[in-house]
Amino acid sequence: MSVQKILSDLDSTRDARESLYKFFHQHPELSLQEHQTSAKIQEELEASGIEVIRIGETGLVGVISNGEGPVIAMRGDIDGLPMAEQSDKDYAAAGVTQVDQNTGKETPVAHTCGHDFHISCLLGAVQALNSHKDTWSGTFLAVFQPAEENAAGAKEMVANGIVDKLPKPDVYLGQHVLGSLPGGAVGTRAGAMLSAAASIEITIHGKGSHGSMPNLGVDPIVLGSAIVTRLQTIVAREIAATETAVVTVGSFHAGTKSNIIPDSAVLQLNTRAYDTDVAAHLHEAIERIVRKECEAARSPREPEFRYYDQYPLTENDAEPTAKVRTAFDEYFGENSVDLAPIPASEDFSVIPDAFGSPYTYWGLGGFADHTTAPGNHSPFFAPDLQPTLDRGTEAIIVAVSPWLLKES
Amino acid sequence: MSVQKILSDLDSTRDARESLYKFFHQHPELSLQEHQTSAKIQEELEASGIEVIRIGETGLVGVISNGEGPVIAMRGDIDGLPMAEQSDKDYAAAGVTQVDQNTGKETPVAHTCGHDFHISCLLGAVQALNSHKDTWSGTFLAVFQPAEENAAGAKEMVANGIVDKLPKPDVYLGQHVLGSLPGGAVGTRAGAMLSAAASIEITIHGKGSHGSMPNLGVDPIVLGSAIVTRLQTIVAREIAATETAVVTVGSFHAGTKSNIIPDSAVLQLNTRAYDTDVAAHLHEAIERIVRKECEAARSPREPEFRYYDQYPLTENDAEPTAKVRTAFDEYFGENSVDLAPIPASEDFSVIPDAFGSPYTYWGLGGFADHTTAPGNHSPFFAPDLQPTLDRGTEAIIVAVSPWLLKES
Amino acid sequence: MSVQKILSDLDSTRDARESLYKFFHQHPELSLQEHQTSAKIQEELEASGIEVIRIGETGLVGVISNGEGPVIAMRGDIDGLPMAEQSDKDYAAAGVTQVDQNTGKETPVAHTCGHDFHISCLLGAVQALNSHKDTWSGTFLAVFQPAEENAAGAKEMVANGIVDKLPKPDVYLGQHVLGSLPGGAVGTRAGAMLSAAASIEITIHGKGSHGSMPNLGVDPIVLGSAIVTRLQTIVAREIAATETAVVTVGSFHAGTKSNIIPDSAVLQLNTRAYDTDVAAHLHEAIERIVRKECEAARSPREPEFRYYDQYPLTENDAEPTAKVRTAFDEYFGENSVDLAPIPASEDFSVIPDAFGSPYTYWGLGGFADHTTAPGNHSPFFAPDLQPTLDRGTEAIIVAVSPWLLKES
Amino acid sequence: MSVQKILSDLDSTRDARESLYKFFHQHPELSLQEHQTSAKIQEELEASGIEVIRIGETGLVGVISNGEGPVIAMRGDIDGLPMAEQSDKDYAAAGVTQVDQNTGKETPVAHTCGHDFHISCLLGAVQALNSHKDTWSGTFLAVFQPAEENAAGAKEMVANGIVDKLPKPDVYLGQHVLGSLPGGAVGTRAGAMLSAAASIEITIHGKGSHGSMPNLGVDPIVLGSAIVTRLQTIVAREIAATETAVVTVGSFHAGTKSNIIPDSAVLQLNTRAYDTDVAAHLHEAIERIVRKECEAARSPREPEFRYYDQYPLTENDAEPTAKVRTAFDEYFGENSVDLAPIPASEDFSVIPDAFGSPYTYWGLGGFADHTTAPGNHSPFFAPDLQPTLDRGTEAIIVAVSPWLLKES
Repeated sequence: MSVQKILSDLDSTRDARESLYKFFHQHPELSLQEHQTSAKIQEELEASGIEVIRIGETGLVGVISNGEGPVIAMRGDIDGLPMAEQSDKDYAAAGVTQVDQNTGKETPVAHTCGHDFHISCLLGAVQALNSHKDTWSGTFLAVFQPAEENAAGAKEMVANGIVDKLPKPDVYLGQHVLGSLPGGAVGTRAGAMLSAAASIEITIHGKGSHGSMPNLGVDPIVLGSAIVTRLQTIVAREIAATETAVVTVGSFHAGTKSNIIPDSAVLQLNTRAYDTDVAAHLHEAIERIVRKECEAARSPREPEFRYYDQYPLTENDAEPTAKVRTAFDEYFGENSVDLAPIPASEDFSVIPDAFGSPYTYWGLGGFADHTTAPGNHSPFFAPDLQPTLDRGTEAIIVAVSPWLLKES
Repeated sequence: MSVQKILSDLDSTRDARESLYKFFHQHPELSLQEHQTSAKIQEELEASGIEVIRIGETGLVGVISNGEGPVIAMRGDIDGLPMAEQSDKDYAAAGVTQVDQNTGKETPVAHTCGHDFHISCLLGAVQALNSHKDTWSGTFLAVFQPAEENAAGAKEMVANGIVDKLPKPDVYLGQHVLGSLPGGAVGTRAGAMLSAAASIEITIHGKGSHGSMPNLGVDPIVLGSAIVTRLQTIVAREIAATETAVVTVGSFHAGTKSNIIPDSAVLQLNTRAYDTDVAAHLHEAIERIVRKECEAARSPREPEFRYYDQYPLTENDAEPTAKVRTAFDEYFGENSVDLAPIPASEDFSVIPDAFGSPYTYWGLGGFADHTTAPGNHSPFFAPDLQPTLDRGTEAIIVAVSPWLLKES
Repeated sequence: MSVQKILSDLDSTRDARESLYKFFHQHPELSLQEHQTSAKIQEELEASGIEVIRIGETGLVGVISNGEGPVIAMRGDIDGLPMAEQSDKDYAAAGVTQVDQNTGKETPVAHTCGHDFHISCLLGAVQALNSHKDTWSGTFLAVFQPAEENAAGAKEMVANGIVDKLPKPDVYLGQHVLGSLPGGAVGTRAGAMLSAAASIEITIHGKGSHGSMPNLGVDPIVLGSAIVTRLQTIVAREIAATETAVVTVGSFHAGTKSNIIPDSAVLQLNTRAYDTDVAAHLHEAIERIVRKECEAARSPREPEFRYYDQYPLTENDAEPTAKVRTAFDEYFGENSVDLAPIPASEDFSVIPDAFGSPYTYWGLGGFADHTTAPGNHSPFFAPDLQPTLDRGTEAIIVAVSPWLLKES
Repeated sequence: MSVQKILSDLDSTRDARESLYKFFHQHPELSLQEHQTSAKIQEELEASGIEVIRIGETGLVGVISNGEGPVIAMRGDIDGLPMAEQSDKDYAAAGVTQVDQNTGKETPVAHTCGHDFHISCLLGAVQALNSHKDTWSGTFLAVFQPAEENAAGAKEMVANGIVDKLPKPDVYLGQHVLGSLPGGAVGTRAGAMLSAAASIEITIHGKGSHGSMPNLGVDPIVLGSAIVTRLQTIVAREIAATETAVVTVGSFHAGTKSNIIPDSAVLQLNTRAYDTDVAAHLHEAIERIVRKECEAARSPREPEFRYYDQYPLTENDAEPTAKVRTAFDEYFGENSVDLAPIPASEDFSVIPDAFGSPYTYWGLGGFADHTTAPGNHSPFFAPDLQPTLDRGTEAIIVAVSPWLLKES
């Protein structure tokens, strides 16, 4: 079978692929600052004779145009996180730092979300496809996307014209290494899979006064507390119990002294939902409650709402998901499993939505014992090198096979 | 009458007293850092031949022992505030700064609470008494107290042995220039006059988690908001409506990001009461509510309470207050008025309480039109030079007269 | 002195007055149903040859026109309370009931607010004045007012034309027997003395649904609880700590079953204040908070507010109060005391306000040991027969003396 | 095929079955008062020669012992609801009433939950099985259960020895007519399908006082409101967003007058969960929050919790559900659909749990247009007579076929 043929070099390339993985692991870079990572990917693609199209500062796409047939895109995100790795791997990226261009401060960086695997597996797969062009037909696009961690990278590639620079994909694919799946397993799911998310900074206005004369002011701390308390009713009362929704107030800051009633308070909220109507309801309800509580408190100015870090819903299309699942079942057998919705968010869907292409996104188990595995973004999150690296590479080849492989 | 005689030099000394006032106004110093102020006071006292007893780093007492008779102490507090003066006086202390020894940072300083008047009036009065020893008999103690603004100075003088270094006063007197009294008026009141106050820093403990998985954590922002909300019931329900009590949460700080539930929250509270039982009830109720709300929320650790800036109740003794009021009525006529309780706090009573002496404390009007006067601690608070300076000097002489003056 | 002369029959009339008191005590009647009481008063007045003017169903005034001079009115309220007396007096009104005309139900009735004393003392005083017309000059009006307990009686007398039927009083007087004053004492106070009060029934609208599907409804119990919680901030934050204000939610009713979210909730509130601006602020704040909380909750209909049992502030005028106090001090000596503001309300001021007359209202001690005395409206409230009955009669004569007595 | 054979009399029996259905529809009876219903069922079974075992007052089981093979039980619940039917069926049970034995009051009754279909379909199926004993082998138990509506009937049958009186079923089956499924469809689902539910009556204790003196009491309305507000955090913060849980406070009652602070408040809560751990967490959290809020409020007595109307989770076993689904798919084709979890509760599982038998429970569509169908318990809930009646009968025969039918 063609899949086997395409993957026939897995053993012979393993050392090189593992070395490359370790390079990426040890050279993590912050979102939109993935210059070295991006250069290394380009170097690898060009060394294999694969065409490279750069999109924006650090985004790039490897393109294999291989005759008639569907256009299939596979995305790998490439950025690291601003934190220090604490894993006990012998190749751990201990002490790596980078100057954050937004703050000017040196900050630790680590691949504690596993994007190093996403890069390496996608490189392995595009090279394998390139080596075995005779077995398949169509176009393969290896999309190396920057800045997934701050929801900026996919938007940036769209802003930089990815839709004009590439043919429209028939399907857009993605994968993520997870601590929650058994090691070596690939997990699929049709429908809502990663939540829509948004952050909102809310500034509410009171009126300062001395703490002994609250009647001369409007207390923004009592107001903010009333808001936080009342926001709990959104999930508890306004959203159907069978829906999944979260409203978290992650920060509350107001005041400087015990006896001075401050002028304002700033709240930072985060919302999650697996349904766009639910997400819209959350935001309508938050704004409604905040505005009305401000009015109840005689707030002298309208509250201000600043939305940021907005992630769309990742909702796998049924048809490509079924195709991928069938292929996975056949190839991986018991290692092809169901994936539960993940309480996290992604900007993965931004690019296929810009193209108007269907998409599916699957999970890749990363730890021999997933019951004790650290979660993504934990300083200890460093998946097992193998079988993760091989399995993630195989998964891409198997996933594209229903579209690209020639009948054998 | 002897009072007139003691005050007979008021015209001839006016220029010198006004110059001295402007010196203090233009050289404000932070609490417990009043080195220049203290040195200037000592220099003035010694130039008049008045004995000086230093108590602590910046506290000092001018002592006139003038034969048999009562011991009367009068307090003047001497520190400025960490803020920039914004008055339009031609002698405004614009741009004055001092390095705060606690933080190492340069900070603006200003006499926006009027302590420069307290110093100058007390110096004028002690010098007048010294010039006319023939008219009175007894001992007069001019207590120049540091650090009233942070409630530390009176405690510091007690810690440095004021009780052992001075004779026990038969009465302890004090005055404060106020924006709320008519210009040139002196206001008295028996009983509760300045509130008991305390600040409390409360740390409450949650359990951090990702914002999308609140169930894995304990949300300290929701907990803190429940506490702030519930604290409102103390004044609204637990304290009799006829009592005066305030519970203010002046600061609330928790969290750093919208989607991370933090580990803890820190609240800073301030309480006010005109009755020690009420003050005690406030603190019992605050601790009760905080502890129980923490338990309701499954808080993993006991909350922590740190009390600071605790001011006692200032409750004028009836007998000396009546004596002073009678003397004021006779001398000032319509300018002797009733004073309402002031929603502020003082460490004035700490020293007389340490001696076991009765006390009374009166107000001095500072602005021609008190209906538009800025409040104490406003950057615009700069009382009219006159008649305030003369009136405050006269008030001291008139107030001590019932105890010290010889029958004429 | 004339006062002594007017009161010279106190001993000889004591038995008759005590019998009459016991009659009223044993024949309590509900508000606006005081038919027997009113008839008995009329009978007594007419037996003494005093002119009677009836005002409304159960109100009446005894008028003595005695030549030139001021017009002085004294009010006695005459209704009982719908409760069963539990005192151990041998003349206790055990088991007395009356059919409540509003509900059609038989209900217990008792004079547990002491209005029986108010009637009896006023009858004694008007008869004494009538017997000694030679000692005084002017007009005395003995106003027997119904329905004080439900705030309806004074309004009813105004509605029935009391202002047109009587000459305008130069001063309007009243007294109330109290458990909080020492037995036999009379207490006066200028300024605010009884609180303004109002009751408000608030209906808030939700949208019913099955308890398992709160998202299909609007939960009025969560809304009502948010309102009650938020109302606490009015007294705690919006009213100066030095003011006296109370907002009580005395009843909260919603729902019939655990698993049905009801359509609405009904709250009954009561407010108290000693200042009309404060009272107005309370009502503005309550309506603001209720309306905004309803909007925050997506309430489908505006809330409804029904005000009832509204009592004005009773605020004694300074000049007549000082006159009465001086007269009390002279006559009663140590039994003339200061009265603290009373946390209760009255419709006493409605009639003098309708006339535009100044007023003063004093307290009368009712129990030998006032520290253990039951409060007004307690089922055990039954003041000592003597000296209360005599003292209340004397107090009226002494109080009117500055206006009516001829120079002796 | 045997299923067809068993169902071959459907046409010929239709008129009789429809008449019987209308009889039950027009003779609804309250829970545990289903005397006429029970007698009619017994009469029908005995007329067909089927053995009847009575269990308790109104419960009964039709038993067909037909040789070797599995024991299969099918449950039909038989009680009506205390409400008036408002459907426009020509056979509507308008004006039917029954005296409620608990209250002694006459109350309307109606089959607005569709139990009349459950009885009729089960009677039709057991008669069909009885008529075609040659096609199957084993034992069939038709369990007619009283009092599902108040969660009492299944417990009552267990208490009356159903486990001893019947052989242990290999599987226990049930169905429910629903407004939420397309007409004529049968819907299945493995796992949690109907929620666990419980009602809790909570009495919280305050301390009464006059509304103007809240400081002398403990306000149970403020306390109750704090509890209701705080309960919202359970679903919003303590339960994972991916779980389904509801905490509803369906009634809140306290107080009688606006100006009297009452002694206590009574809340009635209802909880729902699709997981027994979640249900347990809800109850732990409710008790924790209520107790701690009471302590925060200085409540003078422990709160009291009374649990009632407790329904277990209905969680279909995977293996029998899969068997039934396969049989449905084969027989009904597109009319065999997925069923979403239902936000309602049942005592269906009580009897199979008592036996230790696996169970599955399916839904039966009742309205041609399910998008506009009234919900169960609506006064308008009256499913279409056909195809509902036939389909529910067929469904039972098809469901039992994998266990009972002889190989053909």
